[in-house]
Amino acid sequence: MAQTEISQLGEFGLIDRITNDIPIVNSSTVKAVGDDAAVLSYPDTEVLVTTDMLLEGVHFDLTYVPLKHLGYKAAAVNFSDIYAMNGTPRQITVGLGISSRFTVEHIEELYAGIRLACEIYGVDLVGGDTTSSRSGLVISITCIGDARKGEVVGRDGAHDTDLICVSGDLGSAYMGLQLLEREKVASAGQKEFVPKFEGKEYLVERQLKPEPRRDIIRALQEQGIMPTSMIDISDGLSSELLHICKSSDTGCRVYEDRIPIDYQTAVMAEELGMNLVTAALNGGEDYELLFTVPLHCHEKVEKMEGVKVIGHITKPELGCMLVSRDGAELPLRAQGFNHMSGTAE
Amino acid sequence: MAQTEISQLGEFGLIDRITNDIPIVNSSTVKAVGDDAAVLSYPDTEVLVTTDMLLEGVHFDLTYVPLKHLGYKAAAVNFSDIYAMNGTPRQITVGLGISSRFTVEHIEELYAGIRLACEIYGVDLVGGDTTSSRSGLVISITCIGDARKGEVVGRDGAHDTDLICVSGDLGSAYMGLQLLEREKVASAGQKEFVPKFEGKEYLVERQLKPEPRRDIIRALQEQGIMPTSMIDISDGLSSELLHICKSSDTGCRVYEDRIPIDYQTAVMAEELGMNLVTAALNGGEDYELLFTVPLHCHEKVEKMEGVKVIGHITKPELGCMLVSRDGAELPLRAQGFNHMSGTAE
Repeated sequence: MAQTEISQLGEFGLIDRITNDIPIVNSSTVKAVGDDAAVLSYPDTEVLVTTDMLLEGVHFDLTYVPLKHLGYKAAAVNFSDIYAMNGTPRQITVGLGISSRFTVEHIEELYAGIRLACEIYGVDLVGGDTTSSRSGLVISITCIGDARKGEVVGRDGAHDTDLICVSGDLGSAYMGLQLLEREKVASAGQKEFVPKFEGKEYLVERQLKPEPRRDIIRALQEQGIMPTSMIDISDGLSSELLHICKSSDTGCRVYEDRIPIDYQTAVMAEELGMNLVTAALNGGEDYELLFTVPLHCHEKVEKMEGVKVIGHITKPELGCMLVSRDGAELPLRAQGFNHMSGTAE
Repeated sequence: MAQTEISQLGEFGLIDRITNDIPIVNSSTVKAVGDDAAVLSYPDTEVLVTTDMLLEGVHFDLTYVPLKHLGYKAAAVNFSDIYAMNGTPRQITVGLGISSRFTVEHIEELYAGIRLACEIYGVDLVGGDTTSSRSGLVISITCIGDARKGEVVGRDGAHDTDLICVSGDLGSAYMGLQLLEREKVASAGQKEFVPKFEGKEYLVERQLKPEPRRDIIRALQEQGIMPTSMIDISDGLSSELLHICKSSDTGCRVYEDRIPIDYQTAVMAEELGMNLVTAALNGGEDYELLFTVPLHCHEKVEKMEGVKVIGHITKPELGCMLVSRDGAELPLRAQGFNHMSGTAE
């Protein structure tokens, strides 16, 4: 594909090109790109705002992350934060820092991913800032969403005896990252390298293209279940559960044998000689929903597809514990994927 | 001052430390930091959203920009975008990328500036993302504000015969930058260097600590003047005026002898052998307001303190022209401070 230097277009030319023909799907979007600020209207709802910053070399490695996937993921993880408040994402703004090795076509690829995520999840791209960077790519996305009045679910509403539920499976995105890193090392210096992903496609997809769990939020609404607390799992189950317990002033019991783990995750952990439960508890970037529901919802949540009850909330003095297969209680520790050090600890 | 490594606190410890005791002043702020998203409420107003990204080495040089000033400015320039829509800034989220050379105390300094700006302009800090960076400091701020229904002023409402007005004076922030750069070069390698800012303090202040023009927005409201279009001057008068004319499908005439320039700006331009009008037209970061008002407001705006009428809007076929002191018409060109190349062109 022909490559165009960004300097040929300039900042405004680039912005025109990437924001051209952006559709508007939400009635809350009054005015999108093209002014000092976007104009939104939220007369009857609560407004939710979340922001995430992704830096090259810390959060992503362009050796194995295609730009379109990166754009998709950067948007999707913000949507996930809004769903985790029991809300609906409506608008995003995109801040981009671009170093000189990127061309206009590269940025179009990145935006194609952002726009695809917006299209699938019904979100309007309403503004942003595009600037040059001295080193690598910087992506900062802010997402605005809404929730019906009184239906926002935070981290602080869990109560003693509530059931702890999790969607999907855990540890697969982390194993996907391990796999991609392994193949990157294996490919070093080889021109015609073909990475070995057979039978592990799910892990790669979980790492490169996470899907926020809108389906779970909708299913909960259909079932008439209002979670007492909710959070999305970006830093690992342990870390997020500790956030809920700290904010809600509770303890918890989580059962090792209840933690949902995919077959491919187990195979990969075996191959790498890693502890599977540790990966599931502390591996980051699952973007599944962790939530608590009152005990009387037990039958309903047990029947929900893609949701598993993994434990229950306790009084705070009982602490936050993992109950192992043999019945031993081990304190939960936040050893999440730590972007302050740039590595999984 | 004792310095604390960020790794000693970790991401959550750092966030706790810098977001500790943040006051809430706006009724639209329902829930601030500490969950997946902030919760806001805007039942009767239009919501405005703007975002800006600042990168070390591109937008700021920590050799001469104190971190507290940087934090103040990073917040202030976002407030300026909201005022430029005829709105009031209410909340910000702060995304930070921090390289390992920064300590906890450094980040506290930066936040002290952000918080000071928030305090002065009545804005709540409601969320953010803090992460590590491989190279330098990255600041991404999103500001949310509101405007009374029907009172949002965009770039696209200027009409033939409207008066073009500008607040404050132009070119001083750019001259402040030139001065700081000159002193940086002069100081290279010297231990006990004392920069020469006497008589030029205003220029330095304009560059390091710009103030968004809330006062002008309030004065316009008090006078009952509703601008037909408005923009804040971040890239230079020419560039912003061309934005208004393009969005509004008009031309314009701006009179060179009407452009407000401070005495210190003129002295500095003389010293550096730079063209003063070019600096005033194309020097960036003034953060003054450029707006148009109907012709019948002439008397009122002429009486307003800190506002100057510099020209008028014309039919589009007349083009966008600067009328020089000798009556010659020169086409206005956007030669703004271009952060896509990192230099003032």
